[in-house]
Amino acid sequence: MRTDRVIAFSDGVFAILITILVLELKVPVYRIGNINNAIFDYWPTFLAYIITYFYIGILWLFHHDLFQVIKKTNISLNILNLVLIFFITLLSFSMSLLSITIKNFNINDLKTACYIYTTIAFFISFIFFVIYKYLFNNEFLLTSNFDHTILKSKMKYPLFSLCIYLMAFILTSVNVYMGLVFLIVGIFNHLFAYIKISAL
Amino acid sequence: MRTDRVIAFSDGVFAILITILVLELKVPVYRIGNINNAIFDYWPTFLAYIITYFYIGILWLFHHDLFQVIKKTNISLNILNLVLIFFITLLSFSMSLLSITIKNFNINDLKTACYIYTTIAFFISFIFFVIYKYLFNNEFLLTSNFDHTILKSKMKYPLFSLCIYLMAFILTSVNVYMGLVFLIVGIFNHLFAYIKISAL
Amino acid sequence: MRTDRVIAFSDGVFAILITILVLELKVPVYRIGNINNAIFDYWPTFLAYIITYFYIGILWLFHHDLFQVIKKTNISLNILNLVLIFFITLLSFSMSLLSITIKNFNINDLKTACYIYTTIAFFISFIFFVIYKYLFNNEFLLTSNFDHTILKSKMKYPLFSLCIYLMAFILTSVNVYMGLVFLIVGIFNHLFAYIKISAL
Amino acid sequence: MRTDRVIAFSDGVFAILITILVLELKVPVYRIGNINNAIFDYWPTFLAYIITYFYIGILWLFHHDLFQVIKKTNISLNILNLVLIFFITLLSFSMSLLSITIKNFNINDLKTACYIYTTIAFFISFIFFVIYKYLFNNEFLLTSNFDHTILKSKMKYPLFSLCIYLMAFILTSVNVYMGLVFLIVGIFNHLFAYIKISAL
Repeated sequence: MRTDRVIAFSDGVFAILITILVLELKVPVYRIGNINNAIFDYWPTFLAYIITYFYIGILWLFHHDLFQVIKKTNISLNILNLVLIFFITLLSFSMSLLSITIKNFNINDLKTACYIYTTIAFFISFIFFVIYKYLFNNEFLLTSNFDHTILKSKMKYPLFSLCIYLMAFILTSVNVYMGLVFLIVGIFNHLFAYIKISAL
Repeated sequence: MRTDRVIAFSDGVFAILITILVLELKVPVYRIGNINNAIFDYWPTFLAYIITYFYIGILWLFHHDLFQVIKKTNISLNILNLVLIFFITLLSFSMSLLSITIKNFNINDLKTACYIYTTIAFFISFIFFVIYKYLFNNEFLLTSNFDHTILKSKMKYPLFSLCIYLMAFILTSVNVYMGLVFLIVGIFNHLFAYIKISAL
Repeated sequence: MRTDRVIAFSDGVFAILITILVLELKVPVYRIGNINNAIFDYWPTFLAYIITYFYIGILWLFHHDLFQVIKKTNISLNILNLVLIFFITLLSFSMSLLSITIKNFNINDLKTACYIYTTIAFFISFIFFVIYKYLFNNEFLLTSNFDHTILKSKMKYPLFSLCIYLMAFILTSVNVYMGLVFLIVGIFNHLFAYIKISAL
Repeated sequence: MRTDRVIAFSDGVFAILITILVLELKVPVYRIGNINNAIFDYWPTFLAYIITYFYIGILWLFHHDLFQVIKKTNISLNILNLVLIFFITLLSFSMSLLSITIKNFNINDLKTACYIYTTIAFFISFIFFVIYKYLFNNEFLLTSNFDHTILKSKMKYPLFSLCIYLMAFILTSVNVYMGLVFLIVGIFNHLFAYIKISAL
């Protein structure tokens, strides 16, 4: 099977996901004459929006990078791709959860939201790792100019992310702020990973 | 007429449908400090989401497989494709119906939701069958490397699905849980059908 | 300028529009145990959905047909295409208006909804006519295998639609049901027009 | 890296953004028999919709024009493109803000909405300028038939827009209506800029 429709479908999903996030940015209820206060109080939603926007954006860049070496697809890769996209679609829900729990400030709720966001992020990196692994064992799917050692060194990055998100999960149970910081570190780390991967 | 725009349009619709499903996953209303309970109670929506997500995903894989043997399109095929997509768009509404009726637990309402979901699933498989049949009788639309016997054996699968959904419909009137189980069996069966079709 | 991105963008918009229509199909508020009644009472929304779905679908088929003879695009054609899509996006709002006014049954409100839907439909056909006219006068944008007389005979169809929608507008002021029937006739007429155009 | 997926992704985002704007056009709450009054009172939303629709449409035309001279992409350009799209997605929120504050007429709130819309518009033009600048300094990303002087003269347009939006920002603090007019001038100016750029 050729990869063009898998790529078109995935690009479509990424484009839609990153765009419908903005539907979460609803004009807050405000007392007339005081909309600026209402908008300032809205910062948790903006923060969650910015983080999730660039997270999905970077995931798309990774997907872009990944499919550059894939020549053809088969049923396993198609299903792995659907599973990957499944977890990425859940980021929209996790983002809402995070912004609402920051707004209605309560430590227990914030913890739940952190656990869920971290779990989703963990699974996204995990499926990326599984896809790399699968390609590594099924070289016939790859383009002829792919490099065995480059693919191997790329596999380190999702593994490293798994460790960060595991740590974020454990830290959340100790102190939710540390967990939240580690989650954001994990997301920013994808950007650095992408910069390094691009240079390979 | 060439198939590229039909494929691009269909990919777009599939990508959007599978992504806007996630808009149904709204943060549930919760008592502050108890968001984890609210999320646990939310399982019917998650269940309906997971089933419908993979259902649409597999339908896209079938569509992908189908159009691989189509060389050009004509007005009948374009309209059949629009009708197919019409029924697939209704899955989003059926999913909401199912998750809400499971939540507000009432046998009569659940039956109605099951009937509707099963009917939509029945028509999706039916239109797929009609498209296979139409292609079978209009070989000039197909690529030269298509195989007559393969197309014929592929036609069995939507027919088999029709039987399952008919059964699910009848069983629902007897016992809604059995109907629901059969509906899920019907959906999972698509995955196995796709695996077998890919191997042809 | 090449037409590929204009086509990709337009396909995207058509695919999204036809899919987000389904977001209007929300599970109606219902008394527990009586969801089937609530769904039966929901028929105006289903009717408006079906009509608008196939209307947009056929408009996409026309757009598909139109761009088959276009070799390259320029700024005027790009802007005409944006204006065309602008009016098509308004169908989603007009559909909601129609279904709500049918539900909250009141002749005056229904008239307003009919006027608006008819006006939007009128402008869509009008812009299609303008685009045909523009292409007729700017043949250098067309592929070499285009046929002058075919283009001319295609131009009759939007003109005919303009007459129908004008009639629907006038009839609405006399009797809203006749106006509504004429509006539906106008929309179905597009299908016949497309069948005839495809045969040219 | 090739540009095809960046273009497909960007086209997807533009198409989705311009289409989901229409979700803001909800049927207003109305007294039965008086829907026409409710719709007349709805003009601020229509106005904000029309302006934002054509603003995004013209931004897409600029993006189209920009990528025509780009042969390949790299990580910096990918990230600049993501940042550009980030600010464009915020137009949907700014549009809602503007239409709500015009409706609930209050000078302070209107000022806030104007400041936000103007700031977003400023950043969009700013990122466009940065992208032109970046391409100017990284010619190896461009197609061989690109023209150095044309690119340079294109760079003037976003700079000019920056001045207009800065002016709109300052004027808003003096008189919100003048600020609003200048904002609309700034948006319309993009159309003239695009017409001039196309002629280069």
